[in-house]
Amino acid sequence: MSLTDRTKPTDVSLNTDLYEITMAQGFWESGLVDYQATFNVFFRENPFDGGYAVACGMGQIPDLVENFVFEDEDIDYLASLDAPGGGPMFKRDFLEYLRGHHLDLTVHAVREGDIVFPREPMVRVQGPLIDCQLIETALLNLVNFQTLVATKTARVVKAAEGHPVSDFGLRRAQGPDGGLAVARASYIAGASSTSNVLAGKIYGIPVFGTHAHSWVMAFPTELEAFRAFAKSSPKNCVLLLDTYDVHQGIKNAIVVAKEMEQRGERLAAIRIDSGDLAKLTKETRKAFDDAGLPYVKISASNDLDEYTIQSLYAQGAPIDSFGVGTKLATCDPQPSLGGVYKLSATRKSADEPWRPTMKLSEMSYKRTIPGVQHVLRYYDANDCPVGDMIIVDDVAASTPGDVAYVEDILDAYTTYELKGTPRELLHCYVKDGVRNGEPDTIEQARERCHNAIMHLDPAITRFLNPQVYPVGLESGLVRLRHDLAAAERKQSSRGGDSE
Amino acid sequence: MSLTDRTKPTDVSLNTDLYEITMAQGFWESGLVDYQATFNVFFRENPFDGGYAVACGMGQIPDLVENFVFEDEDIDYLASLDAPGGGPMFKRDFLEYLRGHHLDLTVHAVREGDIVFPREPMVRVQGPLIDCQLIETALLNLVNFQTLVATKTARVVKAAEGHPVSDFGLRRAQGPDGGLAVARASYIAGASSTSNVLAGKIYGIPVFGTHAHSWVMAFPTELEAFRAFAKSSPKNCVLLLDTYDVHQGIKNAIVVAKEMEQRGERLAAIRIDSGDLAKLTKETRKAFDDAGLPYVKISASNDLDEYTIQSLYAQGAPIDSFGVGTKLATCDPQPSLGGVYKLSATRKSADEPWRPTMKLSEMSYKRTIPGVQHVLRYYDANDCPVGDMIIVDDVAASTPGDVAYVEDILDAYTTYELKGTPRELLHCYVKDGVRNGEPDTIEQARERCHNAIMHLDPAITRFLNPQVYPVGLESGLVRLRHDLAAAERKQSSRGGDSE
Repeated sequence: MSLTDRTKPTDVSLNTDLYEITMAQGFWESGLVDYQATFNVFFRENPFDGGYAVACGMGQIPDLVENFVFEDEDIDYLASLDAPGGGPMFKRDFLEYLRGHHLDLTVHAVREGDIVFPREPMVRVQGPLIDCQLIETALLNLVNFQTLVATKTARVVKAAEGHPVSDFGLRRAQGPDGGLAVARASYIAGASSTSNVLAGKIYGIPVFGTHAHSWVMAFPTELEAFRAFAKSSPKNCVLLLDTYDVHQGIKNAIVVAKEMEQRGERLAAIRIDSGDLAKLTKETRKAFDDAGLPYVKISASNDLDEYTIQSLYAQGAPIDSFGVGTKLATCDPQPSLGGVYKLSATRKSADEPWRPTMKLSEMSYKRTIPGVQHVLRYYDANDCPVGDMIIVDDVAASTPGDVAYVEDILDAYTTYELKGTPRELLHCYVKDGVRNGEPDTIEQARERCHNAIMHLDPAITRFLNPQVYPVGLESGLVRLRHDLAAAERKQSSRGGDSE
Repeated sequence: MSLTDRTKPTDVSLNTDLYEITMAQGFWESGLVDYQATFNVFFRENPFDGGYAVACGMGQIPDLVENFVFEDEDIDYLASLDAPGGGPMFKRDFLEYLRGHHLDLTVHAVREGDIVFPREPMVRVQGPLIDCQLIETALLNLVNFQTLVATKTARVVKAAEGHPVSDFGLRRAQGPDGGLAVARASYIAGASSTSNVLAGKIYGIPVFGTHAHSWVMAFPTELEAFRAFAKSSPKNCVLLLDTYDVHQGIKNAIVVAKEMEQRGERLAAIRIDSGDLAKLTKETRKAFDDAGLPYVKISASNDLDEYTIQSLYAQGAPIDSFGVGTKLATCDPQPSLGGVYKLSATRKSADEPWRPTMKLSEMSYKRTIPGVQHVLRYYDANDCPVGDMIIVDDVAASTPGDVAYVEDILDAYTTYELKGTPRELLHCYVKDGVRNGEPDTIEQARERCHNAIMHLDPAITRFLNPQVYPVGLESGLVRLRHDLAAAERKQSSRGGDSE
């Protein structure tokens, strides 16, 4: 079951920008119903000034494509819209074309949990231009945020050095879907659990929780509150120490831990949610050790992210697990991935060959990559990736041999030599509008993410000034890109477009 | 129809942190079923270093409370959960108690679109402690983000100086709900439209759109692309100029505008989505004016926020409307409001008087405000707010007279003198679990927001170093707060809690 299962089919197709439908009507009116397109989703810079991103959200693409239909009430709504200049916005015949229309798309994407780098197509959509356009917004809405939050989580998990990290972000997410997306993506990227019960139910993610300050305040004294919680959750008892005064909280928790021992139970952990976590956790550890309670674990929360966790461990804080909420769910300080959806090839019908196309722009770094693209990833003898190469279909057909030259993507011609047999990164999720087998389970994606990050050079995963992972274009693609840019410039300077 | 209508009832109650249900079980086991609580939602600092926030999301609280039920499949899921230490996490009898349980809550909140300041209760929840706890996460999930995005929008709308702002943020939002929340809150806060079609259908918000770069790239030349779009959307024609070269785009758009004139149509606008918007829009304006097309409007987009819009106008950019996406939907650079939910009063049953309570903390700025709180807003002769006073129930009963002294909230005793008849800010949305009339429509909330911001001192709405709006505690509440803090400290230093 997935996000899209939760919404009525009627909600799926209208979850889009108006211009997608306006353009679809325009293409339909311009006789471009058979016209075909290839679009790519990619981002231009790694989030968080980091060295990589974790692809996420792709496993839900098959549901999105299959459920994307315009129901009668959707058509009625569109028929009710007026153009600003008067008259209906949509023609009746076009709306009849849309009614019951199914997307005849083929979608390739990086597998969930895999590592992806700037400018690589992380999703490639092919099929009728109209269908490609109709799915744009929903697709970006699906993969942009999940990829961002998976990347953030991978960083937090790295900082936690193997200690469990739980997603506590639901209350700061953008509604229920936002909370579910956070829980799903963070679990794939290595979080051990979530506080989000609905995510537990829908995705089978382990759920975790302690108690709030309000629990303590609801009882006459903190000690009574701790006793009541221990009685109610003896197999699951984590006591929150900082409602009033942490040092008093420690004493009270030790009393309760001793009482639990007498009943043959064990206090699982304590949690601290405010104050100087480095100082307080050290004092707490010492107090519990001195009391003969070395098994009681210490959990920390309070506006944590990868940097505070790294700093806490650098100070020797004896923390066994983390609850990470706000900064995970909002991907602070970079709340947007900036993933875009760009046309890279067209053809008049499915029988013709693809014609590569690209968008020029004032700034060369915004220039797109033309053609039907694949990504090849090269590995060293230890299965560690050493470089990626973007190639186009024609080249892919005659798979490059043992050595390939990779050119840097930004017109700066660093040349890399890549050896060995590459693996193709893009997997076919949807073929001709129908799912191509079942996507990986969340557990499989999580395992893939774990392995992928384990094999990444630590120079790429470090937070400060990470090394740039080499991603380039195959030499022929570089030439194609230059030729296309030159042709566009020539046409433009001739003023050829304006008659 | 609202967000919560879109989700199945079974999704509403589990959209929560696990600890809410664990605590509910604990309260139930501790015999606190009749125990009553008052909780407040508030934030500690205005977002975006600004001087105010726009309350939003409250209109959906009645749906949330009424739809909050545990269906059989929810109970089955909870029954399937094991405690980490072994055995079921929830007792069978407690789950039977939850099955079909309805929330018997009374909820007051600031009206949607009204202005709200730090530490004021923007939502006040009262009723059985268990019910208050169960709704916490979903309530924060509902109002935290919408209040944040409404505030962000109000800032962007102010910078736009009366020119229309359209929400383009769906593709960067956290899933469909995120996109809907952005569209709803931004419309309430003054956006004129949204690109989100589903938000148009569900909330009746005006929808707006142009076309994408891909439209231009799908045709052999830009001129053909513009002609086709003008033909397809003659009453709604906005041409995007920057797919290849803006200057060529201007020439092509002028050709098409002239052709439209010959058909008795008018090119509505052009849009520029990259490059130096100040320079390019001036050149565009001049070219269209010189061509006798002064009516063609100029729309700008590309990573805009309140600061870039303000800068564009400071440079004299002749922009008539804005599409604002990423930075609106993600509330960059502050993606979280930090709204919290804190207990402020308890009683053993509904027949007893409320007992105020507060959370001490290592840092005094995190100390909460005790009691069943109301917010009184005072106005000057021009209906402009001059200061807010937080009072508790007892005082509210004997409404303060013409003059009141307000003490600053952070233990710094600035004293304000407030005159006139204040208005109570909190409105009753839900009474004893049932909606208290219908909440305002979105249009009403939008009107309220417009009026409220119009009447705010510009010193408070400016972006740089805004003046602090006076919010204080009524003198008696200040004393109550100090007495409670002293009593807690005394108990703590006695070690009284640990026997």
